[in-house]
Amino acid sequence: MSLISPEVSAFHARVPAYLHRLERTTDALLPPAGADPARLHQAIRYACEGGKHLRALMVYAAGETLGVAPELLDPAACAVELIHAYSLVHDDLPGMDNDDLRRGRPTVHKAYDEATAILVGDALQTFAFEVLANAGALDAEQKVRMIRSLAHASGSLGMVGGQAVDMASENLTLSVAQLESLHGRKTGALILVTCQLAGIAARAPDAVGHALERYGKCIGLAFQIQDDVLDQVADTATLGKTAGKDQAQHKSTFPSLLGLDQARQRADALFDEAREVARSIPGNAAALLWLADHIQQRDH
Amino acid sequence: MSLISPEVSAFHARVPAYLHRLERTTDALLPPAGADPARLHQAIRYACEGGKHLRALMVYAAGETLGVAPELLDPAACAVELIHAYSLVHDDLPGMDNDDLRRGRPTVHKAYDEATAILVGDALQTFAFEVLANAGALDAEQKVRMIRSLAHASGSLGMVGGQAVDMASENLTLSVAQLESLHGRKTGALILVTCQLAGIAARAPDAVGHALERYGKCIGLAFQIQDDVLDQVADTATLGKTAGKDQAQHKSTFPSLLGLDQARQRADALFDEAREVARSIPGNAAALLWLADHIQQRDH
Repeated sequence: MSLISPEVSAFHARVPAYLHRLERTTDALLPPAGADPARLHQAIRYACEGGKHLRALMVYAAGETLGVAPELLDPAACAVELIHAYSLVHDDLPGMDNDDLRRGRPTVHKAYDEATAILVGDALQTFAFEVLANAGALDAEQKVRMIRSLAHASGSLGMVGGQAVDMASENLTLSVAQLESLHGRKTGALILVTCQLAGIAARAPDAVGHALERYGKCIGLAFQIQDDVLDQVADTATLGKTAGKDQAQHKSTFPSLLGLDQARQRADALFDEAREVARSIPGNAAALLWLADHIQQRDH
Repeated sequence: MSLISPEVSAFHARVPAYLHRLERTTDALLPPAGADPARLHQAIRYACEGGKHLRALMVYAAGETLGVAPELLDPAACAVELIHAYSLVHDDLPGMDNDDLRRGRPTVHKAYDEATAILVGDALQTFAFEVLANAGALDAEQKVRMIRSLAHASGSLGMVGGQAVDMASENLTLSVAQLESLHGRKTGALILVTCQLAGIAARAPDAVGHALERYGKCIGLAFQIQDDVLDQVADTATLGKTAGKDQAQHKSTFPSLLGLDQARQRADALFDEAREVARSIPGNAAALLWLADHIQQRDH
């Protein structure tokens, strides 16, 4: 990835500003850490700290490609990160994956307690829809479309359904198609929706919306294959979460089904396809190209 | 309550039709029980079965008083019941109240498993916002206002915050004011929002909205005092949930702070106040009067 174009690196330079916008939007929405009940509100903020914020960056990148002003993207960027944060808090619970470590720190139920973690996840989900409903820069029709898309992506036919299938698949050997379907819901749906939200903010024509969705699907699946690879080859300190979990839980993964090399090749092919789709979208694709490079190079 | 007026009993006669509308709306929104993942979707439907649906009836009653067509009320009635159902599933979890019985049947984590119960609650919350976003009979501005109100009532400054305070208050003796504040959030906020949602459907003027809110606040607090009384005096079979729980968990309750007789008197005074407010609202108050009577007379 040494041959980065000047346009692509221009988006790279704007990343800190986008992350700052995200932080400011989230901070303005969440009640202060001292608001009553203070312990709950501290735990809510704890759950939002850290993380790579890739989903928010996808909203900003897709929006920039379509020429959308960032203030129209802030609520969507914030909302997807809140949904993502809630899903991590609940997935880590003792009744689910029972994990102690997340983003390099104790999980919410370890740092606080289990009841608080359940409530933190519940409240973060509520906030995600509240931030969209309160988005001053969007008109009511855009807000409703965003809420509908985000709800569909994160509900029982999307992320939550994928998590249910994932838990039911422990100790089973899935086919590659079944594994793709599982991850298409568990992680893919929320990654895909980032592109849809940017399209709604841009009032993009259908054809552009569909191309963005193809980009989002490629990135979502490539991201998950990479996640499986990293779970196998990276260490816990680098990941910031427990490594080797898939094997310990006897889960089917892309490396376990395809072998490590072929899994990596499949991810690379998907990143290439994403870049190709990005270049076909009318507008400045540099941001989407940067994102594909950035995700492809991650080590955690 | 033998002196029921003909108008009040006219609403009574319409209750089965309203409950049927609620059921139809919910059924149309939820994926079929056989949808993939089937176990999750069965559990989601299981969690929605049974219950008195008082919150939905409040939406319909307040809407009827304001002359709103029922099809404008269906999404709000359904959404509050979905939020209520999600909160019960999560409150019953081993990490929260750890309860085995709800609505006379095993709780979701008993009938299925803990991971499924966490995901069922998560998905029910998502559906609540989805049903409002998909409400065909409302305009976009009404949908957004409803989503905003429901999110605020059910989030960390409302229902979820109240549950956190409730759990933190075990083994503490609260003042009556503290107990009222706790329940104003834990149960009151969702009861109050039923009136707000009906007001939004009706595009009610502010003065009417405020009167409806006063009615909702009285009913919400009276309902909770009554809940505390019933927990103490009723048996598990009648309640359909574990009786005597408050004492077992060393919780402050209205009877424990005021004595049983004074608690009952306080609830009765609040029901009287609710009726007085209802009569002051321009429109046909019969439905709101019926509801106050109906809740006052409940034995579970």
